[in-house]
Amino acid sequence: MKILWNDQIVEESEVKIDTEDRGYQFGDGLYEVIRIYDGVFYMENEHLDRLWRCAEKVRLQLPFERAEFSQRLHRFAEEVGIKNGRLYFQITRGVAKPRLHNYPDPNIVQPVLTGDIQKVDRPTKQQENGVRCGTVADKRWLHCDIKSISLLGNIMALNEAQEKGYDDAVLVRDGIVTETSASNFWMVKDRTLYTHPDGELILPGIAKIKVRELADQLGLAIAEEPFAVDFLMTADECFKTSSVAEVMPIVEIDGQKIGNGTPGEVTKSLLNAYIQDVEETVTKM
Amino acid sequence: MKILWNDQIVEESEVKIDTEDRGYQFGDGLYEVIRIYDGVFYMENEHLDRLWRCAEKVRLQLPFERAEFSQRLHRFAEEVGIKNGRLYFQITRGVAKPRLHNYPDPNIVQPVLTGDIQKVDRPTKQQENGVRCGTVADKRWLHCDIKSISLLGNIMALNEAQEKGYDDAVLVRDGIVTETSASNFWMVKDRTLYTHPDGELILPGIAKIKVRELADQLGLAIAEEPFAVDFLMTADECFKTSSVAEVMPIVEIDGQKIGNGTPGEVTKSLLNAYIQDVEETVTKM
Repeated sequence: MKILWNDQIVEESEVKIDTEDRGYQFGDGLYEVIRIYDGVFYMENEHLDRLWRCAEKVRLQLPFERAEFSQRLHRFAEEVGIKNGRLYFQITRGVAKPRLHNYPDPNIVQPVLTGDIQKVDRPTKQQENGVRCGTVADKRWLHCDIKSISLLGNIMALNEAQEKGYDDAVLVRDGIVTETSASNFWMVKDRTLYTHPDGELILPGIAKIKVRELADQLGLAIAEEPFAVDFLMTADECFKTSSVAEVMPIVEIDGQKIGNGTPGEVTKSLLNAYIQDVEETVTKM
Repeated sequence: MKILWNDQIVEESEVKIDTEDRGYQFGDGLYEVIRIYDGVFYMENEHLDRLWRCAEKVRLQLPFERAEFSQRLHRFAEEVGIKNGRLYFQITRGVAKPRLHNYPDPNIVQPVLTGDIQKVDRPTKQQENGVRCGTVADKRWLHCDIKSISLLGNIMALNEAQEKGYDDAVLVRDGIVTETSASNFWMVKDRTLYTHPDGELILPGIAKIKVRELADQLGLAIAEEPFAVDFLMTADECFKTSSVAEVMPIVEIDGQKIGNGTPGEVTKSLLNAYIQDVEETVTKM
């Protein structure tokens, strides 16, 4: 497998990650996952916008200009040759010795970039059937708007749901539904979409930006406001959104069917609109 | 520098950390820092107790028996030859491909251990002068009892305090003082020690265990109960405890002197008792 490693493209076996890379010792880094359709980076600008915003929040000085970085990613994708997949990359604060919590001097310690591309297909089967979720206490930090690699909180939440036999976790903080373990959460009631507002409690998803736009086109109202679990349980439909899952129906929560227990009409119309937007984007390029 | 790498002791240049080590992509791992005095691992049992407890909490199946692991650590320390220092080691959930949040099957994916030993001296100067702290909102996750390598929350808090010119952060959650960015926090008022109770909001420090014991011997009362910032500001003395800092006086918070702005008598007596306990432990071995 080919790896993007700083400004090089190398075989996996050639990459040398230091034990004192702050990514390895502190989870001190950021990441993005960009979906590639027919060779086109879908919503690349929005992903890079978020990366730059997050870097600012954690005071990580990105060691490249944006245009050059974008070119680097595209060169990598061409060399790998996977036309439909997902590009993953992460940028850590770099290798600082000895291990100290303090941010190192960015003039001395350079960030470390690594990335790879995996083939992925649209999860059609799951999109047709929907997934089952369980509610789990949201015990993550209060910087959920930062797409950092310190992900153990998300991972533990997912595992807690999976141990109970569910596909994913619907996270609940102080009685309020925030998101799922790695996607934004939405519920539909009377043709209005409810989802938690952006802020420190959720990740501002890139698919969420697109769904806002599509909902508008479909004449659906959106209420981005905190809502409680009680309200959730009255939903007509539920779904989650992410760059890889796109619009994924949720048909059951805590063993209770949502609607009639199959993907709802509003959800399906949003998924169709999303797929159509992907196709139009690809055609335009 | 020599590195402990699973069951081998190798030169740093020989260690191969995979880009898809879950430690590197998710901060999915645990760590410990053990202080070594004159070749003796101080409070080793308590450190290993905590490691095993944390591993259980995150469902990480440690790939060794405790007695064998302890021997491995001691063999490493002998080979490195540093008599006074700190042993750092971390254990990640291992290398699982492709990158997925789900916990991998522990029968297939083995954890990865890495460790090193650095020479450290008692921070005598700081202990004599004390350090200056600033209060910072505690935005870490709600599993602070788990000593995980997903540490960006702690690091951001430290940096926030340092940007304001302080040495460390006193973390405050919902008005309650929890700990500092990497140590347990204590205040003294009328010869009673106040510190946040163990639980999900703080790390159960190993030095804290020792200070409890020493306070008892010195006839000091301990109130392990949540207390507010207002109360903190009436403290006679403050200090923080950790395996490396031992008992570290805090002489100023948010620009306000604590007591007369120098290390307090109770703090000094606890530090002296701590140093004496170290000496007795070393002599006994």
